[in-house]
Amino acid sequence: MNTTEYKVTGMTCGHCEMSVREEVSQIAGVEDIQVSAQSGTLVVTTTETLDDAEVLAAVGEAGYSAVRA
Amino acid sequence: MNTTEYKVTGMTCGHCEMSVREEVSQIAGVEDIQVSAQSGTLVVTTTETLDDAEVLAAVGEAGYSAVRA
Repeated sequence: MNTTEYKVTGMTCGHCEMSVREEVSQIAGVEDIQVSAQSGTLVVTTTETLDDAEVLAAVGEAGYSAVRA
Repeated sequence: MNTTEYKVTGMTCGHCEMSVREEVSQIAGVEDIQVSAQSGTLVVTTTETLDDAEVLAAVGEAGYSAVRA
């Protein structure tokens, strides 16, 4: 298992968290997603090595921006 | 046409506005809805007299609370 943390800016509520979760969950190999609007964090657990670019793109699709923490 | 304004607390983003809009749009006779998370306002335009209780209940269904402005 690999766990990778990102800082996400722009999320304000549970709907925002849900939007990010939906997009990130579509990445192959994702086993768990923890996302918090309050702390602006996204923690992705994967079975294999995670491609940061895919995560940043998924967060962008949801309408927010992320950087590797 | 009747236009009625409400103050809504708890909305933080466009998703929140959309949730309120969806619920309020189900009330019979509603012709137009203006909702702003930034100003915390909801303005409902109806063809007939609007029942405040229905609006307050709809906003509650969306997960927020409202009072007549």
